[in-house]
Amino acid sequence: MTTRADGRADDELRPITFTRGFTSHPAGSVLVEFGGTRVLCTASVTEGVPRWRRGSGLGWLTAEYAMLPSSTHERSSRESVRGKIGGRTHEISRLVGRSLRACIDLAALGENTIAVDCDVLQADGGTRTASVTGAYVALADAVTWLRAAGQLRDPQPLSCAIAAVSVGVVDGRVRLDLPYEEDSRAEVDMNVVATDAGTLVEVQGTGEGATFARATLDKLLDMAEIGTGALFEAQRQALALPYPGDLPDAR
Amino acid sequence: MTTRADGRADDELRPITFTRGFTSHPAGSVLVEFGGTRVLCTASVTEGVPRWRRGSGLGWLTAEYAMLPSSTHERSSRESVRGKIGGRTHEISRLVGRSLRACIDLAALGENTIAVDCDVLQADGGTRTASVTGAYVALADAVTWLRAAGQLRDPQPLSCAIAAVSVGVVDGRVRLDLPYEEDSRAEVDMNVVATDAGTLVEVQGTGEGATFARATLDKLLDMAEIGTGALFEAQRQALALPYPGDLPDAR
Amino acid sequence: MTTRADGRADDELRPITFTRGFTSHPAGSVLVEFGGTRVLCTASVTEGVPRWRRGSGLGWLTAEYAMLPSSTHERSSRESVRGKIGGRTHEISRLVGRSLRACIDLAALGENTIAVDCDVLQADGGTRTASVTGAYVALADAVTWLRAAGQLRDPQPLSCAIAAVSVGVVDGRVRLDLPYEEDSRAEVDMNVVATDAGTLVEVQGTGEGATFARATLDKLLDMAEIGTGALFEAQRQALALPYPGDLPDAR
Amino acid sequence: MTTRADGRADDELRPITFTRGFTSHPAGSVLVEFGGTRVLCTASVTEGVPRWRRGSGLGWLTAEYAMLPSSTHERSSRESVRGKIGGRTHEISRLVGRSLRACIDLAALGENTIAVDCDVLQADGGTRTASVTGAYVALADAVTWLRAAGQLRDPQPLSCAIAAVSVGVVDGRVRLDLPYEEDSRAEVDMNVVATDAGTLVEVQGTGEGATFARATLDKLLDMAEIGTGALFEAQRQALALPYPGDLPDAR
Amino acid sequence: MTTRADGRADDELRPITFTRGFTSHPAGSVLVEFGGTRVLCTASVTEGVPRWRRGSGLGWLTAEYAMLPSSTHERSSRESVRGKIGGRTHEISRLVGRSLRACIDLAALGENTIAVDCDVLQADGGTRTASVTGAYVALADAVTWLRAAGQLRDPQPLSCAIAAVSVGVVDGRVRLDLPYEEDSRAEVDMNVVATDAGTLVEVQGTGEGATFARATLDKLLDMAEIGTGALFEAQRQALALPYPGDLPDAR
Amino acid sequence: MTTRADGRADDELRPITFTRGFTSHPAGSVLVEFGGTRVLCTASVTEGVPRWRRGSGLGWLTAEYAMLPSSTHERSSRESVRGKIGGRTHEISRLVGRSLRACIDLAALGENTIAVDCDVLQADGGTRTASVTGAYVALADAVTWLRAAGQLRDPQPLSCAIAAVSVGVVDGRVRLDLPYEEDSRAEVDMNVVATDAGTLVEVQGTGEGATFARATLDKLLDMAEIGTGALFEAQRQALALPYPGDLPDAR
Repeated sequence: MTTRADGRADDELRPITFTRGFTSHPAGSVLVEFGGTRVLCTASVTEGVPRWRRGSGLGWLTAEYAMLPSSTHERSSRESVRGKIGGRTHEISRLVGRSLRACIDLAALGENTIAVDCDVLQADGGTRTASVTGAYVALADAVTWLRAAGQLRDPQPLSCAIAAVSVGVVDGRVRLDLPYEEDSRAEVDMNVVATDAGTLVEVQGTGEGATFARATLDKLLDMAEIGTGALFEAQRQALALPYPGDLPDAR
Repeated sequence: MTTRADGRADDELRPITFTRGFTSHPAGSVLVEFGGTRVLCTASVTEGVPRWRRGSGLGWLTAEYAMLPSSTHERSSRESVRGKIGGRTHEISRLVGRSLRACIDLAALGENTIAVDCDVLQADGGTRTASVTGAYVALADAVTWLRAAGQLRDPQPLSCAIAAVSVGVVDGRVRLDLPYEEDSRAEVDMNVVATDAGTLVEVQGTGEGATFARATLDKLLDMAEIGTGALFEAQRQALALPYPGDLPDAR
Repeated sequence: MTTRADGRADDELRPITFTRGFTSHPAGSVLVEFGGTRVLCTASVTEGVPRWRRGSGLGWLTAEYAMLPSSTHERSSRESVRGKIGGRTHEISRLVGRSLRACIDLAALGENTIAVDCDVLQADGGTRTASVTGAYVALADAVTWLRAAGQLRDPQPLSCAIAAVSVGVVDGRVRLDLPYEEDSRAEVDMNVVATDAGTLVEVQGTGEGATFARATLDKLLDMAEIGTGALFEAQRQALALPYPGDLPDAR
Repeated sequence: MTTRADGRADDELRPITFTRGFTSHPAGSVLVEFGGTRVLCTASVTEGVPRWRRGSGLGWLTAEYAMLPSSTHERSSRESVRGKIGGRTHEISRLVGRSLRACIDLAALGENTIAVDCDVLQADGGTRTASVTGAYVALADAVTWLRAAGQLRDPQPLSCAIAAVSVGVVDGRVRLDLPYEEDSRAEVDMNVVATDAGTLVEVQGTGEGATFARATLDKLLDMAEIGTGALFEAQRQALALPYPGDLPDAR
Repeated sequence: MTTRADGRADDELRPITFTRGFTSHPAGSVLVEFGGTRVLCTASVTEGVPRWRRGSGLGWLTAEYAMLPSSTHERSSRESVRGKIGGRTHEISRLVGRSLRACIDLAALGENTIAVDCDVLQADGGTRTASVTGAYVALADAVTWLRAAGQLRDPQPLSCAIAAVSVGVVDGRVRLDLPYEEDSRAEVDMNVVATDAGTLVEVQGTGEGATFARATLDKLLDMAEIGTGALFEAQRQALALPYPGDLPDAR
Repeated sequence: MTTRADGRADDELRPITFTRGFTSHPAGSVLVEFGGTRVLCTASVTEGVPRWRRGSGLGWLTAEYAMLPSSTHERSSRESVRGKIGGRTHEISRLVGRSLRACIDLAALGENTIAVDCDVLQADGGTRTASVTGAYVALADAVTWLRAAGQLRDPQPLSCAIAAVSVGVVDGRVRLDLPYEEDSRAEVDMNVVATDAGTLVEVQGTGEGATFARATLDKLLDMAEIGTGALFEAQRQALALPYPGDLPDAR
């Protein structure tokens, strides 16, 4: 029987940890680890909204994803030095923002913006799904902070939790939460963003130099559901602890 | 009963046309129309491959997508003038390239590159799916050109046809091939890239400020299959005509 | 006797066509063809004026020229991808804007801007002169649209028509409207922008690795006059047809 | 009778001076003054040619024009800080390069490049014509330097002298060498680049918010001929003095 | 008596920690903490050297410094998104590189480059001095890695240790290792880079809206010596532990 | 005994000259020469202050430093053409701005900005110190202009003079005001910015591939004091002459 290099079962996640309050300046700051993949996810509250949204009375949530040059197996070049952001970076930043906007009532913020940053400290596959999953926890902390500060019009602006997981076909088998070693040789690769209400937010499946049958897609979605279920449980446990730091006093 | 503004049934494509040989310099040049959406798709053969692929003996296929400033309802700004390519542009360029690489044996090209350009002349929803669908026809013409020029190591490097279609939930109904008017208010929006061998290449589904049930995803995929089936037939008819222009003589 | 490769007489234009309403979103949209050179010229009305002109009560007209990567004999690189606009592109954008501003009373627009875009779909010499000539027709349509919308302070803001043509010395002969094949080996190359009132707007003559006598300049100007005369006639015929599309109702 | 603000006759140049050897590192370095317009023109010899010219055995001449931020009446912004070169800068850089390439046999350089820089220290109208005129003198010095260094295949690669002058219609009168005060309100503005062999290199005439008759163009060209005649004489006198600095010894 | 907000004596460092092996891909990876300032310092070995150094037989060491957007009290904008690196970032990157090059014999590397990255996870004053100090430890680990891999021509290429500390005048008192709260209101601010051989590498002192006497400079240098002494001891203790991870086998 | 290549004593400056009114548009314009190093320093008055300072009632002083491409021994590339400003340029621009802000009461300007430009016409070592020293003279002239124009709230906003000089260890000897030939092989290089009140503004000392003892630093500071003393005297003599040009009439 084919076993995975790290000894996991096909439907098993890597060890998942959330370290809340990893840094202290942002309202929410979480180091998320999916095995060797480690992403610092923060949620900072900033005044005002983008120009196109001014006067609407609504808030906004934006996200930026980036990898540290030293996070990859071979050091990668720094996008600020190149002066250009690559397509992959853009793509993931947009994915994180869309995913989180699915769970928050932006009207509750007034004309303020939550800026989510996902900075990859160490990459070992699944950085985008770890980013979404960790960013939700940072967002939940930022909401707690805003509530304490008396800056929310609706005290419960989050309608559900959001988590994401990668699934793929590797060595002809459907597997959950691919590390780099599997991801780089997967025949099919899919990222699923879901809510703990049982619905989907994003499904992105890609054949890598191959194509896949609809039946495979179904199996991948089944597998993803197992993974997001476990992630929601891990998020709940992490958020059951008190806010890591001092909360502001509302005035 | 809710009917669509343009009078179509829910599972009906807009009028689809392919004008091959729309311009004469590239080896493949196709104006594709999905109703009011019009995209000029070209496939140009260029010598050499990107640096990271040199010495491999393999060819490459790259794609760039862009919108003319005048193509949108309100004139949009020109990316070359802003000096930056936006995230959406990057995302679609990458999608077109990945989709077409799924059907071509790059070893057949030797160390040469096919550069696909999808330039939107008029946008009315579905520009990315029209781009993939039209680009496949341009690619087929470029392959014919390369074969005539004696530059292919394998005379049949295309293993299948590729087409893409958008589907979505609008007014609570699952609908095919959304125009801008529907796309801008869709609750769920999905783009499916498929092969005429019955397999999938890419599935990208997104809740737009909403989430969706797995059952909805299934209905969307069913609907997409109807759409890509009709597109493959339209591609076949278009490609049944001779190459539009003079073919080179092989030496 | 030396004859031209395409069989034309030295003082004969290539076939000239204007397709008004080529796309439907801009107020003016014209596909102009000078033989194999095809340029999509649009005129879009946008609110407001550049910062330096605010508060003047005057409108503005700006122009941008660009070539599709697939428009040239050998595919050229995309300026948005390079992140820089080349000098030639800048030069022609400025020429088109200056030329059109010579015929329009900007006070009639109030503080609004007409944005002219000239996007070359296929290049075969004379793209800048085709751009100016086609853009005038798009501008005339945009003026008709603005008049119908009741947005003009003066109902006839155009004081004359504008057209442009290239002339040059090729094979020792003065010739009109050079295609790429002649342009690339011309000894002298001149672009003339004129009005149908018999005056000149711009004269740009350049020796290409050669210099030229004043007598040659005179012959080139005579030849250009023949060309612009024919272009004004073609513009008049094209504009004699009704506005291609629905006009707004003034309120 | 209308007289000019600076007391000159209509056909009179401003005081013209050439200071050769103004700086000492480049092979040719000339401060040219057309009245209050002062431009530092240098010609530096660099090894190699641009990529597209390699292997041709031919040299190249390139030119860059720029204005110091403090050179204008109101301080202008620095293009390196903005990160973009403006259209006007590009246009003039290209004009200077084309003009000088008309007088030099590039084969004589072997595969080496002469880089001409025209940096405006103080602007008072006519910076582009002063740049061309001064750059010719710097080029002549660089040729002397190359000859001394034994790096020329043909000891006399310059076939003629090059000078440029602006002419225009101001207050209804045809005038030579316009300062800023006249240039900013000229009805017609023309720049003429000529050779001392009596031929023309470039003619660029523009109506500024106006158009002009062919007869006006003829008068402007007559006036320009007077101006370039005087400039060639000034260049000859400047170059009659010995090379300003130490010449290399040929090996 | 004036005491510091964090209770330290004037000549006392904040708690200093080095976490070696903080991430696992680079040859050296150290999280350095100077109180609340936390910087991830990595040293990656890459093949080859910059173009200007090729063929010299010598290696190179380069450094890049950056702050995560969420690292500052108020979220700062991302330099890759702005498309430009700020002057402060450039300045510190250059300082780190110069400082480390003072202690390493680049000939020992052959034509290979050590790329040092200092990414600030949390900023609370002294990020540049923490970067230099932590980067030395990462560099020492990278040297250990290279030695094990048999890639060093000289097994001991490091001639000394390097550390840096900030000193300043705050509230009229000379103080060591300023946190943000002191740094932002310091009258004089100085950064000193030193070697454990008792010599100086860099001294950068600046009056912030004030000037300072030479006697003050002397006191600041005395204070810095106390600080760097303690830092060298902390580095020695950290490096006394074995290399954190698997070392390569030399071949 | 080792003597310097240009015959100077170790503690002797190169010939220093200030040409006030070198150009006529800026309020202050000074060509400063430190031997072969020639920098055009200008101070222009512009309305308004940067965004972050608006509403403060305070003025601002900003500085930009740049080198002409032809100013260096080998022609360097133009930063505007590269589209990026290098780290060294940023570093020096910031140094000049900080240095001059140490001597001026910005409240006296109201919400206006003095823009200082230091453009190097010829580089022979010490361009940054010449820039600071010359820029002070340009600033003093701009202050005279502002006073005459009645735009100063306090007629004497300059509290002291500012000058800068380079010192270094070359051939084992401490030397003043290094030309390029010495600078490029100096073991230690230091730049000192001082006031004529006897205090220091900036001290930047760097070992170049070497380190230095504290005793050496002391000798370098002694040497710098000799240099700045002579520079203050030269500035005083230059400023003893009347303002070079017409002063505005206060209204």
